[in-house]
Amino acid sequence: MPAAAPARTGVWLIGARGSVATTAVAGCAAVAAGLRPATGMVTETDAFTEAALPPLGTLVFGGHDTLDCPLPKRAEALADQGVLPHGLADAVRAELEAADREIRPGGPLPGDTRDEEELIEAFAADIRAFVRANGLARAVVVNVASTEAGPGDGTLPPSSLYAAAALRADCPYVNFTPSTGLHHPALAAEAEAGGLPYAGRDGKTGQTLLRSVLGPMFAQRALTVRAWSGTNLLGGGDGAALADPRAAAAKNAGKERVLADTLGTVPEGGTHIDDVPALGDWKTAWDHIAFDGFLGSRMTLQTTWQGCDSALAAPLVLDLARLLARAHETGLAGPRPELAFYFKDPDPGAPAALGEQYAQLLSFGRLLAGER
Amino acid sequence: MPAAAPARTGVWLIGARGSVATTAVAGCAAVAAGLRPATGMVTETDAFTEAALPPLGTLVFGGHDTLDCPLPKRAEALADQGVLPHGLADAVRAELEAADREIRPGGPLPGDTRDEEELIEAFAADIRAFVRANGLARAVVVNVASTEAGPGDGTLPPSSLYAAAALRADCPYVNFTPSTGLHHPALAAEAEAGGLPYAGRDGKTGQTLLRSVLGPMFAQRALTVRAWSGTNLLGGGDGAALADPRAAAAKNAGKERVLADTLGTVPEGGTHIDDVPALGDWKTAWDHIAFDGFLGSRMTLQTTWQGCDSALAAPLVLDLARLLARAHETGLAGPRPELAFYFKDPDPGAPAALGEQYAQLLSFGRLLAGER
Amino acid sequence: MPAAAPARTGVWLIGARGSVATTAVAGCAAVAAGLRPATGMVTETDAFTEAALPPLGTLVFGGHDTLDCPLPKRAEALADQGVLPHGLADAVRAELEAADREIRPGGPLPGDTRDEEELIEAFAADIRAFVRANGLARAVVVNVASTEAGPGDGTLPPSSLYAAAALRADCPYVNFTPSTGLHHPALAAEAEAGGLPYAGRDGKTGQTLLRSVLGPMFAQRALTVRAWSGTNLLGGGDGAALADPRAAAAKNAGKERVLADTLGTVPEGGTHIDDVPALGDWKTAWDHIAFDGFLGSRMTLQTTWQGCDSALAAPLVLDLARLLARAHETGLAGPRPELAFYFKDPDPGAPAALGEQYAQLLSFGRLLAGER
Amino acid sequence: MPAAAPARTGVWLIGARGSVATTAVAGCAAVAAGLRPATGMVTETDAFTEAALPPLGTLVFGGHDTLDCPLPKRAEALADQGVLPHGLADAVRAELEAADREIRPGGPLPGDTRDEEELIEAFAADIRAFVRANGLARAVVVNVASTEAGPGDGTLPPSSLYAAAALRADCPYVNFTPSTGLHHPALAAEAEAGGLPYAGRDGKTGQTLLRSVLGPMFAQRALTVRAWSGTNLLGGGDGAALADPRAAAAKNAGKERVLADTLGTVPEGGTHIDDVPALGDWKTAWDHIAFDGFLGSRMTLQTTWQGCDSALAAPLVLDLARLLARAHETGLAGPRPELAFYFKDPDPGAPAALGEQYAQLLSFGRLLAGER
Repeated sequence: MPAAAPARTGVWLIGARGSVATTAVAGCAAVAAGLRPATGMVTETDAFTEAALPPLGTLVFGGHDTLDCPLPKRAEALADQGVLPHGLADAVRAELEAADREIRPGGPLPGDTRDEEELIEAFAADIRAFVRANGLARAVVVNVASTEAGPGDGTLPPSSLYAAAALRADCPYVNFTPSTGLHHPALAAEAEAGGLPYAGRDGKTGQTLLRSVLGPMFAQRALTVRAWSGTNLLGGGDGAALADPRAAAAKNAGKERVLADTLGTVPEGGTHIDDVPALGDWKTAWDHIAFDGFLGSRMTLQTTWQGCDSALAAPLVLDLARLLARAHETGLAGPRPELAFYFKDPDPGAPAALGEQYAQLLSFGRLLAGER
Repeated sequence: MPAAAPARTGVWLIGARGSVATTAVAGCAAVAAGLRPATGMVTETDAFTEAALPPLGTLVFGGHDTLDCPLPKRAEALADQGVLPHGLADAVRAELEAADREIRPGGPLPGDTRDEEELIEAFAADIRAFVRANGLARAVVVNVASTEAGPGDGTLPPSSLYAAAALRADCPYVNFTPSTGLHHPALAAEAEAGGLPYAGRDGKTGQTLLRSVLGPMFAQRALTVRAWSGTNLLGGGDGAALADPRAAAAKNAGKERVLADTLGTVPEGGTHIDDVPALGDWKTAWDHIAFDGFLGSRMTLQTTWQGCDSALAAPLVLDLARLLARAHETGLAGPRPELAFYFKDPDPGAPAALGEQYAQLLSFGRLLAGER
Repeated sequence: MPAAAPARTGVWLIGARGSVATTAVAGCAAVAAGLRPATGMVTETDAFTEAALPPLGTLVFGGHDTLDCPLPKRAEALADQGVLPHGLADAVRAELEAADREIRPGGPLPGDTRDEEELIEAFAADIRAFVRANGLARAVVVNVASTEAGPGDGTLPPSSLYAAAALRADCPYVNFTPSTGLHHPALAAEAEAGGLPYAGRDGKTGQTLLRSVLGPMFAQRALTVRAWSGTNLLGGGDGAALADPRAAAAKNAGKERVLADTLGTVPEGGTHIDDVPALGDWKTAWDHIAFDGFLGSRMTLQTTWQGCDSALAAPLVLDLARLLARAHETGLAGPRPELAFYFKDPDPGAPAALGEQYAQLLSFGRLLAGER
Repeated sequence: MPAAAPARTGVWLIGARGSVATTAVAGCAAVAAGLRPATGMVTETDAFTEAALPPLGTLVFGGHDTLDCPLPKRAEALADQGVLPHGLADAVRAELEAADREIRPGGPLPGDTRDEEELIEAFAADIRAFVRANGLARAVVVNVASTEAGPGDGTLPPSSLYAAAALRADCPYVNFTPSTGLHHPALAAEAEAGGLPYAGRDGKTGQTLLRSVLGPMFAQRALTVRAWSGTNLLGGGDGAALADPRAAAAKNAGKERVLADTLGTVPEGGTHIDDVPALGDWKTAWDHIAFDGFLGSRMTLQTTWQGCDSALAAPLVLDLARLLARAHETGLAGPRPELAFYFKDPDPGAPAALGEQYAQLLSFGRLLAGER
């Protein structure tokens, strides 16, 4: 009797034609095929070999987007910017094309006359169709769309429409952006009752990652941080989206929360996010930390982080999709503060220091393994 | 019946007229008198209120040094360099003079004809006399002298002579420098048999402190560090001492050990220590870390740490003296890897990540409290 | 017959109790007395020995301010922040007190019912009285007050009232700030007719100084600057004043003009000025320059400038007062683009590269010498 | 009657298979064909349109090298490292192959029994044959080989053998490296008598370029530089060559000469060159400058330059070849201090500040135009 084909797991990306999504799809294929090492994927380290996560080769990608640039073309453009290695887009063209075929139009677009309920239902139908057509065990919905401005007038912002669709389609949900998503009051009851695991929000990829180890260092050493100032320079879609002060405010709230939580106080200083199109997807983040040492001596630490935003985010997206898929499989539901390691603004109850978050993540991995 | 005077604890500093020692003596007095906050002293945080550590006001300072500049004058010079706040030397002049009276000539000086045994015995006699004359419950010996070149010809280097004297005088011992101290094979048996707690070596005050949180961050995120390069610029006595390549080698070994231990591999790149007298006691450390992200994307992190070496070291010296004094009081003996938080090259068995070291330190504090 | 006492020259400071003014008064006294070297004063270099500038010891200080903190106390506060060396305030107390006695209330303060004409006349009367009472050959008026928001409703902003008063009192005028000063259309005719030399505006002390040498470097090497982004962190009065976006806009216009003038294009990127009170008068300016090299290779330069704003500005203020006093003596009138070396936004006709500005300054020095 | 074909000019590269040479050959072809802008080439700016320099399309490349990797393959490898844009090697394959055919074996290789005279004659014969076979008007010899250790035992180092061959073949000579080249005493008389223009040495591409504008800035502002420290991290062939302390010493001498010449004093501090293979051809240079401002205030400037070494060097190599070819055509001979703009260690008589060097270069361009 032939062995059954392994179960396949869906990853439904909101913003499926963006840089992060394209990098995740291309990268998953490249790593699964052994073309590239799994650098940046924590779920591929030894600590997770027993966690029974869905193998990379069993992930199936689809998603919503309001743009219509084909994924292979998007991947070529990313290669020209140095985000993807040259030749990779060609090597994984089949996988990019397969994912491209599973992308459905997002919304609402200008002129769209559907009301909230109609949009949610349409999105949920797309997701259900994806799961059914591909014979998937389940699909995890991950929001990697551009940051939207904070909620305003009581209507559901697009990120929350998609989150509601995920609940309706019975899918675990990850919010990798600072957008509202499942954090909308109108969705709270449904999220709680849904029996689905979810996690968020706002992926911790660069400056905030650093802050989550430096803040605890100052606190543990009893050094008094007087001012923590930061500037982020980035281009790409994210740079443009964050040029909207309301979007930037949402992002900065997460950045500064990490400081408050790890330092125990809110130091002076602010954080800028500047749109610099010339930098493309390459982000530079400068932090200047003024702190007092013994007897009031004035000291400083400066950090400059230069990274490719999509390459930092994509492996975390793959990690989260796998972890939530397995959590769903084992019957876990509700918010997962054990995944705080990945987020600027994690679910309540999580520690703020990266080291402790990592310890919780390892525990979570053991929990997933144990329930196998 | 009047209350008994509280027990007093000695802190015997090898290098007692150096910047670190002077800052420790002046700072202890200033903090004990409420003139300055206890910034940088972990033992003054809430976590240690139950640990029954000797209060700062009960510490009595003395030590060995081969120089003879009076401590009050040394403190004035440090104030001129901005290491100590102006006016502080005057405010704690009595305490500086008291410590100054307890400093004995170190050695061996050129022309000194005493052999190793005679030197050890002379040093031990000085320490015993200090304890007796001041009616101390005990004294902790702390090496804060300039880094000496690595051991060479089988003879005991000065740092080991002092360490042997500490054992002989029945004193707990801390090696805050990369010098050999108690790590000499000739002292191993005696250290083990002595029933004394000891800790070391090489205080972790700046660049290595940073590395002990950044290294784990890269490892936990599965980011591949390809090269970690560093340059330290500093003047003062330490800059001059470390201009000796053999002394610098001892220091660098500690710096690079932290990388190897936290990253799991030894990345490319080296570390320079440059003597720049113009900088005085103010140290600038630049680190450049080249790492690979997902799909081999090339990223970098740079850090610039600008701090005052003595102000970084002095509160740690006070912490260590208090912790080892209390450990001795409770009967603990042998190496204390629980104090790895403070050292570049801690005693075996300690974790390498600062967060875990901090957790162990807190446990140690609870242990000390429990044995009260 | 006794030799005549040397002529004395007045320096009338608008903002006479501010950090820059206090540093200029104290520093002039210290350098004149030989207590400190003339670091940062270009007019004390060999190139100006023949220029017949008024000796530092013959300068007499006075000015307007709306605050009333005595200069000696202000100097003590600056010493506590590390802006002035300790002990200096005491050493030059007599000179600080003398200047303090010559400071008159500025305005208009809230509730002041005087109209523009009355204010100008009152200020001019103060200046004339200062010149007469001290038997001065002349006085140079220098605006070192906090940056004011850009001009708005057609009324004269305070900086222009003071500038008009300088004209009326027949005094050369320097605008060391980005405020309007003499650049107000209502003052144009009077400035031209006045027969007085004047110069401005906005002292070039840190980030813009750097840009005035780096911009030409990129241009001369035919390297294409794609984006030039900057962040300034500073506290003190200037930090607070520049937290007003309109004041910051005035300052940034000067900063970006230097780039446009030296690069020939306006690159992407903006400049932030952040008020960080914890930094006091110590300013940190970070610049990130993304440029293209041969064949489109992407390169970057980053600079971090850490300086004390008042200590950077004060020697330039003294330079300018001396140069304009001598220019007045030799009969020069009108705008002095030869002093572009000192300004972000110099008078028309000046080159933008610091090297060329320096060459013009040297020529100007020879001109002043020749007309002796 | 058909127009005569334009004269063609040879560029004979010592180290013709290295990164700089490969980039120069590929880049020249790309710019000549209009595929890429001439970023970084000063001779392509408007200031040189009248200078009658040989057009890029008329340059013919050849050279010596001891390696045998074909240029097209070398170009592919550079593209993989991000030094050359992807696709460029293919687009200019014909030109790379043409240059490849003109590369002759260098020497002496191990086991080579030829004496100095034989080597010089062999090299000169290669160059003469190149000129003759290609019907060139002239050829300029440019040394872009790896830095060799300083001269030792009186024998001619390889760079001097090649320089002697250039003289013998009647070719203008450029030394773009810190190697000895024409600076050997044994070649002095011949160089002087040769009637050939020559220039050198050691191209100024990054850290020293910066120093040549920052040094003058400090000097012109009368700010006292107390210490100037630097660290260079680079991989590639140059990184490996400079890991030899003697080669690094040669390079550093040039770097520090610029400081001494522009500051008028030699500040404290040294410069490190570290071989970090992981960085490939991408160089990071960090400088830390401690300077005193007014009244002794302690300030610092830090710069971090991140550039691609070959992309910085190649356009300067093309500039120099064209300028010396035209100088030769107009009959100019001897050292050309007017080209100091390009060198760390220029010919005697040149100014040290980049701005003045640029002015001299422009004058030189006018001279070349005038003699047309």
